Amino acid sequence: MSESTERSADSELLVTERTRLRRGHEKGRLARSELDGILSAGFVCFLGVVVDDVPMVVPTVYGVSGDTLYFHGSVASRSLMRSAQTTVCVNVTHVDGIVLARSVFEHSVNYRSAMIYGVPRAVEDAEEKLAGLRAVTEQCAPGQWDYARRPNRKELAATSLLALGLHEASVKMRVGPPDDADGPDRASDVWAGVVPLASERGVPVADPALAPGVPMPGHIRSMGEAGPASGG
Amino acid sequence: MSESTERSADSELLVTERTRLRRGHEKGRLARSELDGILSAGFVCFLGVVVDDVPMVVPTVYGVSGDTLYFHGSVASRSLMRSAQTTVCVNVTHVDGIVLARSVFEHSVNYRSAMIYGVPRAVEDAEEKLAGLRAVTEQCAPGQWDYARRPNRKELAATSLLALGLHEASVKMRVGPPDDADGPDRASDVWAGVVPLASERGVPVADPALAPGVPMPGHIRSMGEAGPASGG
Repeated sequence: MSESTERSADSELLVTERTRLRRGHEKGRLARSELDGILSAGFVCFLGVVVDDVPMVVPTVYGVSGDTLYFHGSVASRSLMRSAQTTVCVNVTHVDGIVLARSVFEHSVNYRSAMIYGVPRAVEDAEEKLAGLRAVTEQCAPGQWDYARRPNRKELAATSLLALGLHEASVKMRVGPPDDADGPDRASDVWAGVVPLASERGVPVADPALAPGVPMPGHIRSMGEAGPASGG
Repeated sequence: MSESTERSADSELLVTERTRLRRGHEKGRLARSELDGILSAGFVCFLGVVVDDVPMVVPTVYGVSGDTLYFHGSVASRSLMRSAQTTVCVNVTHVDGIVLARSVFEHSVNYRSAMIYGVPRAVEDAEEKLAGLRAVTEQCAPGQWDYARRPNRKELAATSLLALGLHEASVKMRVGPPDDADGPDRASDVWAGVVPLASERGVPVADPALAPGVPMPGHIRSMGEAGPASGG
C-alpha cells in the first residue's frame, strides 16, 4: 500500500502497525469515503496527546479541508502546544444505537468511529490559517464564515491552529441487530433489538443581549430544522 | 485537600498538577456532584492510553458504582491489556449546543466534560466482576441486568473489566449565550445565540430474527420515550 498523499476519494487508507485491527476485523473499513463520511458528520473530536508520559484526552472542534484535519482549542492550550512535533491520536465517533441482545454478554453499541494518527503541524501562514479556521467554522455551523465577522489580525495571531494529515487512519463501525440470533440463546424469550440514538439540533435560541431587530438568517434557522446532527 | 477516598456526594475532587486548569478557569468546576451528573448522563467514554510512546484514544462503554468507574471494550483489547498498571485518561463529554457569536473568533460550543486520571486495576474477583458488568450494562440500558441472560462462567472469564477510581478528576463546562455581547461587536447586526444539541433515543427496532411472540418489555419501550439520552 502506497504512502502517497495523493489519493482519490475512494482510495484506501494507509494501514500501519498502529491502525491494523487486532480484534473485530469484520468491523474494520478502509475506504477513504467512509472516513470522509464519519468526519463530515461531526465537528467535535477527541484529541489524545502524551504529556509527561501520561495520556491526555481533550475534546475539541475540528474541520476538514482536502487531506487535512484542522483543529484548535482555546481550553487545551497546554496539550496543543505540546502536540506539535509529536504524534497525536484523534478520534471521531458517532454512537448510533444501543444493541440489546438476549444475553448481557452480547450487548453492544452501534457506532461509526474514525481514528487518525499523525504529527500535527502548527499553521503559521496567514492564508492557510484563515482557510483552516474557515473549515473549522463551517464544520459546525455552515454559512457562518460568510455571515459573522471574520478574524482580524489580532484575533488570528491569538488563535493556535494545528494541521493533521489524514494519511494514517482507520475506520471501525458496527451496524445492525444483535449477534446472538443464531447462538444458543436463539430460542430465548428475551426481546432483542436496537434502540436508535441520534444527535438532534433544537430550535436556535437568541442571545438575550441581541440588539433589537436583528433577524435570524436562513442558514441558522435551517440548522434547527435539518434533523440529525452530531457533535461527536 | 484530602486524598481520602471517602468523600461525600458534594465533596471536592482532588486537584493535581494534571487536573489543574491552565486556561478557562471560569469553566472549571470541582464539585463531585457535577462529576456524577456528567458521568450518569452518558455511557460511552473516550479512553486514552499510551502504547509504544504514542497516545491512543478509543471509545468504550462504562459504568459507575460508588467511587469506581468500570470499563471494558472487546474491540480495544490491546489498549486494555496495556492500560492496567499504567496511567490512563478517561474523558466523558456531552455537547449541548453550538454557540454562534457575532464574530467567528467568539464562536464556541456549550458542553459538559469530565476528565479522570488514574491507574486502572484489572478486576479478577468474580463477585466484583459481576457487579462491574452490572454497572456497565445498567448505565446504557437500565433494566437489562434483571431481564437478559446474565454472563455464565465462560463468558465472565472471556470479559476483561478494568476499574478506575474517581479520585483524580476535573470537570469543565460552558453554558449560556456567546460572550461578545459586551465587546466591540455588541452593536453588530449579526444574529447571535445558541443552537441546542441533544442525543435522542428513537423507537426500539426489533431484531428481525426475534422469535415470534416475544413482547417488548416496558423498560425497553420506555427507552424510546424517555427523551434525551447521550452516548458520549
